[in-house]
Amino acid sequence: MQPKKIVGKVTFIGSGNVAWGLAPFFLKNGIEVAEVYSTNQVTGAEFAKKFNCQIAKNLASLDKNSDLYLIAVPDKEIEKLALAFPEAEGIIAHTSGFVPMNVFRKFENYGVFYPLQTFTKGLAVNIAKVPICIEASNKKVEKELALLASKMSNNVQMINSEQRKSLHLSAVLVSNFPNFLYNYANELLEESGLDFQILIPLMEESVRKIKYLKPSDAQTGPARRNDQNTIEEHMRMLEAFPEIQNVYNLLSEQIRKKYHE
Amino acid sequence: MQPKKIVGKVTFIGSGNVAWGLAPFFLKNGIEVAEVYSTNQVTGAEFAKKFNCQIAKNLASLDKNSDLYLIAVPDKEIEKLALAFPEAEGIIAHTSGFVPMNVFRKFENYGVFYPLQTFTKGLAVNIAKVPICIEASNKKVEKELALLASKMSNNVQMINSEQRKSLHLSAVLVSNFPNFLYNYANELLEESGLDFQILIPLMEESVRKIKYLKPSDAQTGPARRNDQNTIEEHMRMLEAFPEIQNVYNLLSEQIRKKYHE
Repeated sequence: MQPKKIVGKVTFIGSGNVAWGLAPFFLKNGIEVAEVYSTNQVTGAEFAKKFNCQIAKNLASLDKNSDLYLIAVPDKEIEKLALAFPEAEGIIAHTSGFVPMNVFRKFENYGVFYPLQTFTKGLAVNIAKVPICIEASNKKVEKELALLASKMSNNVQMINSEQRKSLHLSAVLVSNFPNFLYNYANELLEESGLDFQILIPLMEESVRKIKYLKPSDAQTGPARRNDQNTIEEHMRMLEAFPEIQNVYNLLSEQIRKKYHE
Repeated sequence: MQPKKIVGKVTFIGSGNVAWGLAPFFLKNGIEVAEVYSTNQVTGAEFAKKFNCQIAKNLASLDKNSDLYLIAVPDKEIEKLALAFPEAEGIIAHTSGFVPMNVFRKFENYGVFYPLQTFTKGLAVNIAKVPICIEASNKKVEKELALLASKMSNNVQMINSEQRKSLHLSAVLVSNFPNFLYNYANELLEESGLDFQILIPLMEESVRKIKYLKPSDAQTGPARRNDQNTIEEHMRMLEAFPEIQNVYNLLSEQIRKKYHE
């Protein structure tokens, strides 16, 4: 089977942050959000209400006339879903950075539609700048998914499964882990009676710099300067926070080694 | 001695990133940059040329009529400088997040003027948003430094030496360490033939979220979900990068513990 036309009608499988993050941009660009299927009946019903679409009771009862079945569920459920998924004419694609495309190999027209972004329910992202990473089982599907992505984003890229995994791991390094470090700083500042928000301009500038400098050239701080006096004092200050101290120690040592050995 | 008037004339001690970062904003607000003293003769001469000011050959020959001597040198040199600094009528202040104010205790009018920002030569920051942290030996100096700071920034805060140390340590956590993680991601993406810039929108959004959510509520990622399958695969992918693997392992374990134990 070939997809019969340009994607105009989408079914969401899953009703989590990614589905909530993407659905408004489909609607905004004239793509119909026809139906949702979710194992979570609460968020599924909320999604259907918010985006004015049908709810499927189970996979078998899905509307078979969608142009695209977009699977936005936790990674570990994708394979199971792919196996149970009914035959349909439309494209089947997932939104995961981690799961290989060939999880859908029993179908003919399939692919990946991976928005490289962190989605939080209730916070709208500027989708125009979000890289949307496309992979597809054939040229026709690739063209359709890329066209769909380009309706919302100016940054559509063809990325294969191996590259996407590397991107996904990198995203953990540049997004999840920094957020956890923010969390540590929040703890320390609460102790000192300071508001964490005072750090925001610094955090913003640290990202902005990276548009102009390689990360290795942008590195600053005590470990970069091999300033043992400051490092030792920070380690002393962290004695009451052994977990933060461990992380401080490891990262400082690795920075020092990179620049001073 | 009392400072005789509102700060109108500044002498910079040091010609590094902080001096280069601040000087343009003094000039822009009608504050004269009168003189610079630097142990680095090359950057000292560049600074004097760029900001059209005098160069002092040594501390003893400094112009004694400045309203403010702003010491923007590496932390470990501040105490030495304070001891060697000649008597002067103006305020003496440093720009360090780490060094206590009382390093200047032999003077009468002294303080701290700490811009909580990362400065990179050649990259202008939006100073209006930068928190400037003030501490002073007396109310009159405090008023003068705060007035000076408020000419360039909308975010002037009174911060004591202990709090400032905590801020400085937090800045390492939210700026220097994330930058090192960016560096790791850059390594991984180079291996995969991908351009690091693809991660910028994600990095920006990860910071933007923190304006609306507590870091602990904004946490996402495999460790947050306790997704062992993904964590194990990431650890396997990092076998060729043992240093990154160490950091990945420690941070993932700490995130998992915080949310799942």
